[in-house]
Amino acid sequence: MLQNDLLLRTLRGETTERTPVWMMRQAGRYLPEYMVLREKYGFFERCQTPELACEITLQPVDIVGVDAAILFSDILVVPQAMGLEVQLIESKGPFLPDPVKTAKDLTRVRVPDVHETLGYVMDAIKLIKQELNGRVPLIGFAGAPWTLLCYMVQGKGSKTFDEAKAFCYTQPELAHQLLQMITDTTIAYLKAQVKAGADTVQIFDSWGGLLSPHDFETFSLKYIRQIVAAVKEEVPTIIFAKGAWHSLDSMAATGAHGLGIDWCIKPEMARQFAGNNVTLQGNFDPAKLLSPIPVIQKEVKDMLRAFGPGRHIANLGHGILPNVPVDHARAFVDAVKEFRHA
Amino acid sequence: MLQNDLLLRTLRGETTERTPVWMMRQAGRYLPEYMVLREKYGFFERCQTPELACEITLQPVDIVGVDAAILFSDILVVPQAMGLEVQLIESKGPFLPDPVKTAKDLTRVRVPDVHETLGYVMDAIKLIKQELNGRVPLIGFAGAPWTLLCYMVQGKGSKTFDEAKAFCYTQPELAHQLLQMITDTTIAYLKAQVKAGADTVQIFDSWGGLLSPHDFETFSLKYIRQIVAAVKEEVPTIIFAKGAWHSLDSMAATGAHGLGIDWCIKPEMARQFAGNNVTLQGNFDPAKLLSPIPVIQKEVKDMLRAFGPGRHIANLGHGILPNVPVDHARAFVDAVKEFRHA
Repeated sequence: MLQNDLLLRTLRGETTERTPVWMMRQAGRYLPEYMVLREKYGFFERCQTPELACEITLQPVDIVGVDAAILFSDILVVPQAMGLEVQLIESKGPFLPDPVKTAKDLTRVRVPDVHETLGYVMDAIKLIKQELNGRVPLIGFAGAPWTLLCYMVQGKGSKTFDEAKAFCYTQPELAHQLLQMITDTTIAYLKAQVKAGADTVQIFDSWGGLLSPHDFETFSLKYIRQIVAAVKEEVPTIIFAKGAWHSLDSMAATGAHGLGIDWCIKPEMARQFAGNNVTLQGNFDPAKLLSPIPVIQKEVKDMLRAFGPGRHIANLGHGILPNVPVDHARAFVDAVKEFRHA
Repeated sequence: MLQNDLLLRTLRGETTERTPVWMMRQAGRYLPEYMVLREKYGFFERCQTPELACEITLQPVDIVGVDAAILFSDILVVPQAMGLEVQLIESKGPFLPDPVKTAKDLTRVRVPDVHETLGYVMDAIKLIKQELNGRVPLIGFAGAPWTLLCYMVQGKGSKTFDEAKAFCYTQPELAHQLLQMITDTTIAYLKAQVKAGADTVQIFDSWGGLLSPHDFETFSLKYIRQIVAAVKEEVPTIIFAKGAWHSLDSMAATGAHGLGIDWCIKPEMARQFAGNNVTLQGNFDPAKLLSPIPVIQKEVKDMLRAFGPGRHIANLGHGILPNVPVDHARAFVDAVKEFRHA
């Protein structure tokens, strides 16, 4: 039994005493306690060692007081499990030395047994649940198929992911084959996370906003829809497709319980697009956490009033920046916790 | 007298025989003829030598057949004229070794005499007008104050421009002082461009989409509004604030003749937001020019139908990518030229 289930009740549309709050990348570089572990262990070592993943996952719960823990991991463990080499070069970002460009490359990619290849994630989840001991819910996650394709084809980060897009536009059959393989893997992966103890899951489509509304439907939402359909009866499901404000209505129609939004849309407009049967999550500008604390406190109140009571989870509109002082992050969380709708 | 004034008539809301077309960064790296000059001359040498700027400006008119020329230059010539050192490192992007961080730094920044500091631009415009000899109109341009502040404070390109945002959020008085100085310089600069022969001007707010709707009004649109007010009686004026779809209504209310939009908004929705008294410009996904030519031709038709007849200038939703084959760029332009609304 959870002592604090504000997040889950808000996702289910129940009335709660206050708005729940967590922050994307809350287990991250702004925390000195995280930096200590980052100095000592490589990125995948931190992901693959359940004790380390557990310790990192719990840090923001203990230090900043968020209403949910989110599994410490990376969306690129899935391409890795599917047979691609993934390097994470600190400060330079992900690098896949052998990306998928042709039909021949696709033969190197497989839909793996997730228990065999990603068992360490499920072990971490079990350990985290034990250590959390019911204090707050645990959020599991995976990357959306489109975002994973971006890395699997482009081979590294990009402002435009034009090679990934060109792959989709010139070889659509191959692209759909790859997207379906990622989707099948992701469904098995998220179901395993839930079985291991994840109380809710979030699908991160970090690069959904690079596609036109039409292409977002074709290359992204079509697959997200399958994932949501497969897991939403088991746990509440959140879609965060950064920048894809234009498809909030179609995303709500998937039956997802929550939709993440960034700070570039007014809460009132997001609500209008998404309708009333879904919880909105966001949408504080991460750079605004660099403001003086009184500014943060004022802007949090403005945001909460704009969303109105119910069906809202307070969060940033993207991951917390590494240069945010911890007391600013705490001021954000506290301001949400102290607020009551009139 | 212009032989082809489709662009200007469309900006003024007149009925034209067909939709005009040009491409952002049309004088750029996808053209082998440009690459020859890029090998031989440094970036600012190309900008500052009227003969070179003229030759580069005319290349896409001759080679691809666009309906407008746009001055070959860079938005960062303005910070340079205002007293900051700007380096353009090919393949790495802009670098300003002494960015503005404090009140003291701001004392190094001045509102210059644009004829003294940017006279080479006006010389280039006069030469281009002479060489164009009335074939198509010439578009002048400048960066929006917010986008220039981003570089002047951050000192280099960035995905989030969080240092520039932190500057605005923690030292708003300084930020507004700097924005006003950029605005005053830009107004004088665009007026000088018009006097030298520019037939229309575009204001590029490349980073407007990084701000929340509220901050976009505070730190960007407030200043764009002043610029539009100062030049719109002289020539048709276009605002392109990439990603700032949420403020199309307020941008239309500035009295600008045209608004650029990217591919992440459906033309119908952009029209609904912007109203009927402004010309929309865009919004082909630049990466889609990497598709096979028949796909480009089909998607151009879809785009033109979605915008409907009148009040539309065909363009990309952002600059053309360096890896686009020239015949694909030409296929885009030709498809627009051949299309007639039923």
